[in-house]
Formats: sequence, structure tokens, C-alpha cells
Amino acid sequence: MNYREESLKKHAEWRGKIETVVRVPVESREDLSLAYTPGVAEPCMAIHDDVEKSFDLTRRWNTVPVITDGTAVLGLGDIGPEAGMPVMEGKCALFKAYGGVDAFPICLRTKDTEEIIRTIELIAGSFGGINLEDISAPRCFEIERRLKEDLDIPVFHDDQHGTAIVTAAALMNALKLADKKIEEIRVVINGAGAAGIAIARFLLAFGVQEIVMCGRRGIICEGDTSVNPAQQEIAKITNRGKKQGTLADAMKGADVFVGVSVANCVSKEMVASMAERSILFPCANPVPEINPADAKEAGAYIVGTGSSEYPNQINNVLVFPGLFRGALDVRATTVNIEMMKAAARGIAACVGSDKLSREYILPPAFDRSVHESVAKAVAEAAVASGVAKIK
Amino acid sequence: MNYREESLKKHAEWRGKIETVVRVPVESREDLSLAYTPGVAEPCMAIHDDVEKSFDLTRRWNTVPVITDGTAVLGLGDIGPEAGMPVMEGKCALFKAYGGVDAFPICLRTKDTEEIIRTIELIAGSFGGINLEDISAPRCFEIERRLKEDLDIPVFHDDQHGTAIVTAAALMNALKLADKKIEEIRVVINGAGAAGIAIARFLLAFGVQEIVMCGRRGIICEGDTSVNPAQQEIAKITNRGKKQGTLADAMKGADVFVGVSVANCVSKEMVASMAERSILFPCANPVPEINPADAKEAGAYIVGTGSSEYPNQINNVLVFPGLFRGALDVRATTVNIEMMKAAARGIAACVGSDKLSREYILPPAFDRSVHESVAKAVAEAAVASGVAKIK
Repeated sequence: MNYREESLKKHAEWRGKIETVVRVPVESREDLSLAYTPGVAEPCMAIHDDVEKSFDLTRRWNTVPVITDGTAVLGLGDIGPEAGMPVMEGKCALFKAYGGVDAFPICLRTKDTEEIIRTIELIAGSFGGINLEDISAPRCFEIERRLKEDLDIPVFHDDQHGTAIVTAAALMNALKLADKKIEEIRVVINGAGAAGIAIARFLLAFGVQEIVMCGRRGIICEGDTSVNPAQQEIAKITNRGKKQGTLADAMKGADVFVGVSVANCVSKEMVASMAERSILFPCANPVPEINPADAKEAGAYIVGTGSSEYPNQINNVLVFPGLFRGALDVRATTVNIEMMKAAARGIAACVGSDKLSREYILPPAFDRSVHESVAKAVAEAAVASGVAKIK
Repeated sequence: MNYREESLKKHAEWRGKIETVVRVPVESREDLSLAYTPGVAEPCMAIHDDVEKSFDLTRRWNTVPVITDGTAVLGLGDIGPEAGMPVMEGKCALFKAYGGVDAFPICLRTKDTEEIIRTIELIAGSFGGINLEDISAPRCFEIERRLKEDLDIPVFHDDQHGTAIVTAAALMNALKLADKKIEEIRVVINGAGAAGIAIARFLLAFGVQEIVMCGRRGIICEGDTSVNPAQQEIAKITNRGKKQGTLADAMKGADVFVGVSVANCVSKEMVASMAERSILFPCANPVPEINPADAKEAGAYIVGTGSSEYPNQINNVLVFPGLFRGALDVRATTVNIEMMKAAARGIAACVGSDKLSREYILPPAFDRSVHESVAKAVAEAAVASGVAKIK
């Protein structure tokens, strides 16, 4: 099937992938007096007296906006806020279907960091959490950091952390099969944008010792001032051997390759130069850094991609519905590293040793049990780490 | 029943009066490939090529935010954005139940006029229209005026125009019963806030010749610089006789009293001083300017209030669902005076001469046929006045 063509047809038929529905009776004068005036004055005043009650008396407790400025939508780049809407609506549909979260798409007509931050702060009182989406680097770092400081609800940039969490989950299971220890592996990450940097930070938190990041001009090394500040920052905690050179140089002898970059930038020779039982996650969308069949032919032991066309899809749809479900359930005030680690472990644990194979390292996104597992793990981690308002 | 107490209980049970639901299948890999990646790239690019397609390929065509800053919620005043949420959610429920509109509550954490305008401009690309709600005067005038200039989707401040439209509809039907002509009546409006000023302007557009507005210090007269600019402005087109004095002075000999002010500020003596077959709409919420029984006793011919506890509820719930339904259906680029007049006539027409009585001048809000009638009238008026993109 030509998915893109068929999808366009379907979108024209659907005219929207989500809608709102009414949860209360509004069929009589009495109904209106309770759901609306005059009765509604009482819950209003209860919230006025204690803002925290907005989580009990309205839908706020379960509502999350999916917010973009349309600058980094899928692999399509800066296509504008309105054009990002089909993706945001799709995420909202998945939020509800898999996590029971009432998500709502908001596409912002500005690329200005300060305006984006301010707008989200101003609307935050309507929501139980904030999901940032498809905002380009390096602005997304500042936007997320500031919002996390300012707001007392979970703020999550899915392109960074959703990708990092699912990649870590995939890696955990792949390492079991390859019989390698996370502390001993050498990882190469190609693509030093939002996702690549977030993956690097998260894998370090998970125990990886040696990571080399590559950008468009090859290996990123501490002291290189030609890269952006976020990349200079990550260079300080990766590439401890201060390697220089090309992506091909980086990949020689590496155990793991993670690609969040561009189509077809990895050759069979590069794969062949890696360590034995190599793990490759070429996740560029829609076309991976190397075709999985080619990678396998060149000696790759396990291959996972971002695409649903191949086995082992490394899809952040596995993360965000359950992560927000768990965070909202315990009224977490933030998303911290403990919650993120718990999410990764929750996903990995869904593939039991009886099922785990080189072609099956992650469960499919439409398997509801994954999201329940993630939600439970995240809620427990929030409580254990002291950021939950409901125990 | 104690509606307020019962409503608080219900809100705690409901935990939200609306929610989102998924309109598309997301049960298989193939489903995801169409509703989400990779297929979704195609509708994204179609909108990128032509932003107008955002009305065809996403839910934008049917989606309206109910936006407040929480400064003038019901009769409760400035209770803050979060505390306004139960009212906004209630409106959203009514938008959907009566108009089929997917409405979404957004409560803004600012009272700054410029910030409110800018925030709404920035999120407007996600919506098919904008419903402003419970924003205090005089800021609401500037906010609505500027947004109407800047945006090419309908912008409607319900507290102003919804109230004006339903009041005009009630007046049209009341005048039939009182056998008075709209050009010949003398109208007193007590309360020179957003609603009062909007009612005055709208009744003038409908053919009323003589209106006297009263504020907290009595009759508002041209040249009085102690009142705010919006009130000075309205003074220029009302009170042509340049009357001065109290509300009681204004009411002597008047045919119609419209109250959008405070409880119990009208006495039986004041009603008795009005013209024969007087019409009173004391709409202060939750307690009217005068109790309807007292007004009747003092000689009022027809009484309507803002409350569901008495006959003739003058409720802007009769307006907004159908008005937006009609505007969205023809992709109107604004809400103009023709559409507003059509809405008023559409409501009035729903009470046939067989049903019309002094205790029944308006249909109940839960009568679905009103909203259909309003939608049809508004859509036709939008097309006829040249502001509809779909004919």
C-alpha cells in the first residue's frame, strides 16, 4: 500500500482524528442548573479557595496539550504550525487510545523561544501536564528546561526523551541477546540534534560508559567551537578518548550504532567494521541510515529502525501514553530521570525471555499491556522519588 | 434542590464535563501507518502547500477554544483562570451537545490585554473560531476588536454578543405580546459593563431609537468623564435627550428595563413608574435586579430573567452553539452584525404564535431545534453578507 497517498485520502474522509464528547447530562433545565449555571458557581469557588482542586473538579487531571511550533515535524522539517496539525492530532489519538489521556493539539504561530515559553506558561493552568512536540533544536532544550523550572506539572519533550527512553529499552533487550554488558559497550550516535543529545544523556544515566556523538561534520569532540552550545555541552561528557574523524572512523569497533540523522548515510563497510554481534538502530524517518537487510548482510546482529515496515520498530509511541498516564495518576509535579528510567525498564520488561529474539526486541505499540506496564512503573517511580502529590 | 451544593458533589464525581475521543482506528500496524507515521506526512505536506487545507484534513474546521482569563466569571468576578474552568468546561459541553462543535477550555494566567491578544493569535491556527468568555470590561472590547482585525476566523465574545443577541430575541417576542413597535420604545439598560454596552449597540442596530444606560452612579450622559472610555463612547449614541439622574429617574415612563447589573437594585416603585405593559429583563445572576413576582405585582407585563428558576430565561446558551455551528459550516471569516441579527431572529422565530405567551417568550436551551434554526440563519447570513468561504 502507498501509505502516504492512502493516508491523505483517509484524512480527507476523517476530517479530524479526535473530537470532544460530553460526559454529563444536559437534557433538562435541572441538568443545566448542575452542569452550568447556577450550580457551577460552587465548584468555581472551591477552586478559587484552593487551586489544587482544579485537578478534582475539572478534567484538568487528565488533560495534556500536544504543543508544537511546526519547526521539526517528522523528518519534514520546518513546515509551519498548521501543517504540523495532522501529526499532533495523531499523537492525541494515541494518547487517548493507549493511555486514556485527553490530549489536545495546539500549534503555535511563533518560533520565538520566549514567546513559546510564555504562551505555554499562560495556558498551563488548564492542563495536567505538557507534551512538547517537534520543536527544533537547540530551542527545544531551553524551552523544556525553563518550563520544567516554572511549572509544577509534568513537562516532557517527546522527541528528546520519548526517543531516548524507547531507544534505551530496545538497547537493554538487544544487549541480553548479544550477551554484552551495558557498562562495557561502545556506542556511536549519529545525529546531534534534540533526539541524539537526549539519547546520549539518557544512555549515560543508564550506565553506558563510552559514547561518541557524530554530527554533520563527523565526530564531535570537546573544544570544537564550530558546533552549537548544546553539542559543545554533550561533547564534554561523551567521547572521553577525544577521538576525531568521520562517522566511519567512529563506527570502527563500536558495539552499538544509533542513528537519528538522515537516510542512507551508513554503508555496509561501516557496519562490517563494527565489533562482533553489533547492534544497529538506524532510526531516520521515513528512510533509515541503512536498510536493515543491508545491515544484516554486512554482519549486524540486531537491527531496529524507526519504521513500521521492518521488525523491531523503535517507536516512541511505546513511551508517551503510559508515561503521562502514570504521571497524571499520581499527580506528579515533574518528569524526572527516575520516572524515565522506570518507563524504559517497563517497556523492556514487556518482552519476556520466551518471546525475546533478534527480530522481536520490543512489543508493538498497539499492545495495550505495554502502556499499562509503563504507567505503573512511572507512577511508582514518581512516588518513590518524592514528586507525586497522590500516593 | 440546593443546586450549588449538589453541583459541587456532581463535579467531584464527574471530574470533567468533556473529554476527547478517538475517531480513527489505531489497532494495528497498518492503522498506525495511516493515522500516524509514515502516512501522516502526506496530509502535513498538503497543508504546508495550502494552509486552507487545515480545515479539510484536521479537526480545525469544527474546533473552538472557550478562552477566559477568569476575571469576570458568572457574577463571581475575578476568581482566577483555574477557578473559571468549571464554567468553561460547561460551555464546552453545551457547545458540543447543542451545536456539535468540538470546544476546548483554555484559561489564561494573565490579565494583560496585549498578552491575551498575542496568546490567542499564536494558538489561532489550531482552531476554526475563537469564543472569548468572562473577560472583564473594558479589556474585553480591545481584545475582541484586535482579534477580529487580525484573524480570519470568527471571533465572538459571548458575554457581550451572546447576551445581546438573546436579549434582542426576547425583546422581539415580548414586543409582539405588548403590541409595541421597536422604533417607538424607550429602553433603560442598567449595568454599563461588557454585556450592557453590547446590548445597547445591538438594540440600536435592531431599530431601537431611545436607550438610556445607567451605571453604578446612575444615568450615563455624554460628556461625563468620570466613566470609562467605553462608557463615554456608548453615551454618545444613547441618551439623546441628555437626561441625568438616578436609575429610578431613568425608569420613569420607560417601556423596557434590561438589567445586567446587581441583585435587588430595582424596587417595586420603580417598576410601577414605568409605561403601561412594561417589559422587564432583570438578568443579574444568580439573583435578579428584582424578583419576578415583585415586578409582576408592581405592574410589569412581561418579566424574563437570567435564571432557570423563573419562566422566560434569557440565556445565551440559546446563541453560541448554533451561531458557531452556522459560522463553521460555511467557514465564515468573521461574525458580523448580519449574522448576529440572523441569530436573534432565528431564536425568536422558534416560538410560534401558537405558543407565544407572557410566560413563554423564549424556547428552552435544551430544545435542539433552536440551535438548528440559529445555525441555519447564521450560515445563510454569512453567505449573503459575503464572509463565507464555503457557499
